[in-house]
Amino acid sequence: METGVEEAKPGRPLPIARIVAPRSVAVVGASDDVGKFGGRVIHYLQKHGFPGQILPINPNRATIRGLPAFPRVSAAPIAADVAILAVPASSLEVQVADCAAAGVGACIIITGKLAEAGPEGAALQERVLTIARDAGMRLVGPNCLGIFNPVDRAMLSSSLALEEDEYAPGGIGMASQSGALMGTLLSFGRHHGARFSRCISVGNQADLGLEDFLDYLVQDDATRAVGLYIEGLRDPARFRALLRAAGKPVFIVKAGRSEAGAQAARSHTASFAGAFPAFEAICRDAGAVVLDDPQAMVLACDAAIRLAPLPAAGLGLAPIASSGGSTVTFADMLPAAGLRLATMSAATRAALGRWMPDTHIALPVDTGSFHEGTSGDGLSDCIRAFMADPDVGAVVVPMTTQPDMAGRTALFPPLGREGGKPLLYLMTAGAVGDASRAVMRAADFPFYDRMSDAIAVIRALDAAADGRARHDAPAPDRPVGCGPAPALPIGALTEGEAKRLLAAYGIPTTREVAASTADQAIEAARSIGFPVVLKGVSRVVVHKSDLGLVRLNLRDEAAVRTAFDEVMAALERAAPGAAEGCVVQEMARGEAELFLGATCDAQFGPMVLAGAGGVLVEFLQDVRTAPAPLSPHDARALIEGLRVASVLRGLRGRPAADIAAAAGVLARLSWLVADLGPRLAELDINPLILRAAGQGVIAVDARATLTEETKP
Amino acid sequence: METGVEEAKPGRPLPIARIVAPRSVAVVGASDDVGKFGGRVIHYLQKHGFPGQILPINPNRATIRGLPAFPRVSAAPIAADVAILAVPASSLEVQVADCAAAGVGACIIITGKLAEAGPEGAALQERVLTIARDAGMRLVGPNCLGIFNPVDRAMLSSSLALEEDEYAPGGIGMASQSGALMGTLLSFGRHHGARFSRCISVGNQADLGLEDFLDYLVQDDATRAVGLYIEGLRDPARFRALLRAAGKPVFIVKAGRSEAGAQAARSHTASFAGAFPAFEAICRDAGAVVLDDPQAMVLACDAAIRLAPLPAAGLGLAPIASSGGSTVTFADMLPAAGLRLATMSAATRAALGRWMPDTHIALPVDTGSFHEGTSGDGLSDCIRAFMADPDVGAVVVPMTTQPDMAGRTALFPPLGREGGKPLLYLMTAGAVGDASRAVMRAADFPFYDRMSDAIAVIRALDAAADGRARHDAPAPDRPVGCGPAPALPIGALTEGEAKRLLAAYGIPTTREVAASTADQAIEAARSIGFPVVLKGVSRVVVHKSDLGLVRLNLRDEAAVRTAFDEVMAALERAAPGAAEGCVVQEMARGEAELFLGATCDAQFGPMVLAGAGGVLVEFLQDVRTAPAPLSPHDARALIEGLRVASVLRGLRGRPAADIAAAAGVLARLSWLVADLGPRLAELDINPLILRAAGQGVIAVDARATLTEETKP
Repeated sequence: METGVEEAKPGRPLPIARIVAPRSVAVVGASDDVGKFGGRVIHYLQKHGFPGQILPINPNRATIRGLPAFPRVSAAPIAADVAILAVPASSLEVQVADCAAAGVGACIIITGKLAEAGPEGAALQERVLTIARDAGMRLVGPNCLGIFNPVDRAMLSSSLALEEDEYAPGGIGMASQSGALMGTLLSFGRHHGARFSRCISVGNQADLGLEDFLDYLVQDDATRAVGLYIEGLRDPARFRALLRAAGKPVFIVKAGRSEAGAQAARSHTASFAGAFPAFEAICRDAGAVVLDDPQAMVLACDAAIRLAPLPAAGLGLAPIASSGGSTVTFADMLPAAGLRLATMSAATRAALGRWMPDTHIALPVDTGSFHEGTSGDGLSDCIRAFMADPDVGAVVVPMTTQPDMAGRTALFPPLGREGGKPLLYLMTAGAVGDASRAVMRAADFPFYDRMSDAIAVIRALDAAADGRARHDAPAPDRPVGCGPAPALPIGALTEGEAKRLLAAYGIPTTREVAASTADQAIEAARSIGFPVVLKGVSRVVVHKSDLGLVRLNLRDEAAVRTAFDEVMAALERAAPGAAEGCVVQEMARGEAELFLGATCDAQFGPMVLAGAGGVLVEFLQDVRTAPAPLSPHDARALIEGLRVASVLRGLRGRPAADIAAAAGVLARLSWLVADLGPRLAELDINPLILRAAGQGVIAVDARATLTEETKP
Repeated sequence: METGVEEAKPGRPLPIARIVAPRSVAVVGASDDVGKFGGRVIHYLQKHGFPGQILPINPNRATIRGLPAFPRVSAAPIAADVAILAVPASSLEVQVADCAAAGVGACIIITGKLAEAGPEGAALQERVLTIARDAGMRLVGPNCLGIFNPVDRAMLSSSLALEEDEYAPGGIGMASQSGALMGTLLSFGRHHGARFSRCISVGNQADLGLEDFLDYLVQDDATRAVGLYIEGLRDPARFRALLRAAGKPVFIVKAGRSEAGAQAARSHTASFAGAFPAFEAICRDAGAVVLDDPQAMVLACDAAIRLAPLPAAGLGLAPIASSGGSTVTFADMLPAAGLRLATMSAATRAALGRWMPDTHIALPVDTGSFHEGTSGDGLSDCIRAFMADPDVGAVVVPMTTQPDMAGRTALFPPLGREGGKPLLYLMTAGAVGDASRAVMRAADFPFYDRMSDAIAVIRALDAAADGRARHDAPAPDRPVGCGPAPALPIGALTEGEAKRLLAAYGIPTTREVAASTADQAIEAARSIGFPVVLKGVSRVVVHKSDLGLVRLNLRDEAAVRTAFDEVMAALERAAPGAAEGCVVQEMARGEAELFLGATCDAQFGPMVLAGAGGVLVEFLQDVRTAPAPLSPHDARALIEGLRVASVLRGLRGRPAADIAAAAGVLARLSWLVADLGPRLAELDINPLILRAAGQGVIAVDARATLTEETKP
């Protein structure tokens, strides 16, 4: 066995490593006709050199493709490790039962129209699962396309992707909830010279699921990077734990990204903490990278294996090629992708100065500006200089058609390997670039057919580098004075109650005094000091400012009295009978505002959110999510990653806001939601006002909803 | 001649149509060695079947590649239409002089190290140009890669892209300031079955430039869509006029997009109206489409020719395929690209209902959910339903590997043609997809290797459809009461002066009264009515609010007096000796704010800008630019295209703001800058306050700088 997974023990259940690399395979529905599923399975097993025993199962044939055939699995001379079933749904139950009776270790069920087709199929799937469970037999699928294992030449699939001549073994392990997409990606990767270890189409996951195969791939020594296509998770907690423990790069495409945005939502937190943001947050936290494009996912897995590692996240790029057109257009595409050109060191500039006029020393480098006749040597020398430059994360070579293109191409793999940083070679031409692609395949070095592919790969490698750094950080400590929560009722809290909850976690809130009459409000304003804010209180009104229930900047007693009367009237209109009086608050002022939120995701548990404050949170969609608890350091990184962070840092000479204090509040909020867990449906601070750096922050408004009462 | 361009007349200068399709070509530096530029030129002329006369020029050879050679151009028996020069820079002048003496019509100069290399090369280029001009001989280049003309089999280039077996003629015309990039794009397009009419590498444009070839391509009947790679323009006004008159789709990649963002800028308008935004604005206005990716540009040109036209901009998409994985991931990528799924009509839903369970009727469509055995017929029927659905702009088929893939592929070209809307077929697999690609090439139908390619093409087609609609709109009328401008001094205007300028164009501004003393300020506040705003006046202070020179919401006389004293003191600190007193203004309130700006771009003349107002303009970079003048309709479209437009329309039940009135102001501002032209360096209204719909807008602050005084 090439894997680090324990050797199969006698008896059941068969370990996944043995299902992926079986010693014997029964093909139920085997045929000489490659137009049929079973015909293709046996054809591909042979074509790709399966070294174990193949047992064709077909009641009507004595031999199939030169092999002795058997009428049923139980009639074969040995109990196969694995049976592959590509039979009509109507005969599936009988065949699985026969496999179970024969002592087969696992069934890979290609047959579809099971649970995905409706209640009838779901019932059949359940019966099949029961048969397997009772016999201690594992299932892969149903409705899957099987397993590709180039390492052991075990191609257990009917996928047309196996029409490719050969899949040389490599390090990319994949598990996918779409078999057709997976097959397509294998062929796509192969074009680029990317090579795979084991790829598993999990189908309906009646028994073995994505988490099981992720567990296997993480432990598998042959697998050096993992790609996952996920539609939904069965065991989110296990998934998260596996990602955290992976110790190898994991790149993920998750279906349903666009649904999150479409969900109607009652309040901020619910609308921003939908399934996808929470999924992405726990992946980022665990060091895994979520992409939107399955093709980019495969290229990223390959780059993580075959390119030198990116030294760190956030570094610059050094594009160099013989075409100003290709290097400039590549450079122009960087800002929109969140990437940048490197800032060259003096040593790098000096190295470039040996080959080109001083006036031309700038990134991107067009080697057309080199002194006459120095192109090849100059190119190598410049790339070596980039590789040594601390601000260069990766070198990018967007080649265009040129004389001796394949010969020139051969320069790059040694330069990339010697330099110890990623070198991304682009060959964007069509067939005239094929000789160069062949050079790269022969050198076992990646190439990219699109500028956009190279950019997607760099983004993914950058995110992976960021993930590695996060992975090495210690677990967060609980700040002093964090909790416990006070006793509070179930349901929507008043603003005052929500602020008591915040205060119990050391989060500063505005001073406030309740007032049931105008005179009380004036008395409260005097004690707090003018100007003040007056707000109507009701558990049932969510968006107070929309209904005129918030009056800011009241500067004298007359203004407070008028505001009190108007707010009480508005409150009675908005929520008849549910008015709970008013509160008078200090009028907080600062440099900037943030929205902070907390929620307990149904799949992944406690989450915090941060975004642009006030009304901006709604239209900017500038919100980031992280699992709770998190350290002040990670809280700060979350806030610094917002687009609104440029405002917080002080725009156009304005004072910088107290980002450190805001990060401290976000960290405390993360402990609050971590402690309360699902008891906290949602909590918003909007806005948190940030004063100038060093002067702290204050929560001006807060809302929260509890699913059960808290006790101190 | 296949073109609509007039036939070459006897004598000079030779028209471009004849340079692109010459009857005779002299190759200076001709060689049997395809390792040399001149060797490749003659090899490619022969290989691609040049039908005219080829005259090899080489002093040391009697024949080259089977053709009689001549020692110099003037020694050849005829004066060639075109001479191609791939000679060292040192001999260029002599050779060009010889061509001139021989009566050659045009020289295509591949030779580099001319103006692009420094002053010495620039001087040589100038001398060569003088020789040509004196003789009435045209030049293409130098430092170019020549001309590809598959229509006339005139491949006048040394580009390795000509190693491809054949370039069948087609409708894509291209002009490029990068020859290497152009050659690469030709080969890239050829892979996809895209076909070209004429492609010109313009090089250093010593004589003929990009605008000349654009003029030619626009008139050329063989060219049905134009692709341009532009680094800089020589004649922006002519370029713009050509785009406006093109009458065929034009797709453009412009180098330097990222520089605009990097420019340090003194004020808003200067920073947002940098070269790239103005370039993009005039292209959009003329109906042309600017993209960031040269590969996408070629695919967009091809799609505009070979796919049915997109009926209109802003329509939805209908993805359908046999893989849930590919259709869902494609759908997930749409929102980030500004695209959306279609909303199916009842008729479409009914059509889908014939093939799948009701529970599965939704976009994207996975044909795996069709009833057993109905896949092919159901697919065709669903696509026909999509083609008839008014909200469907295009059908997208993200194919994955599947049985009989090539046979299935053949279904799509007829469905796409019959439907009359774009059908985008994706084949994202590697070599196993090649049979399907061959089917598409044979059917003369586009295919896409990447999901991201298809998305880029749809975006480009959508922008082109939007451009067509704009192109058909009448020229804007001048609103009543627009101008003339009052007499104003050169340089930075005071706020009051800037507002007088606005008022002369019918733009409402806040009432204001100047005050030199606190008593005058109080008197002014009384006449305007409390609350008021008080501002310090100085020509030399740009960002007043940053320096405490703006006091809002002054509610009584005491507040006005205090504010006056403080502002005058701050003004004296900020601009010693340059204080011009204060102004007292009405305190305007509304639902939302916008920034509106005007400037006169150095290349493209009068421009207006609109963006999110207040401090947001700086960090959101949510600004759009349009050439002036523009109609209220186009002004509204510009504002509606801002991300902040969702706030203006009324977020979360707030009243909608008066967008129509804001558009009216932007249109008036566009006439102001159109009238003043370069006399107006810049003008900002920030903020323009928008009241609730129907209640108008008001310019609260304005700044302007004139380059010369205005006279009434």
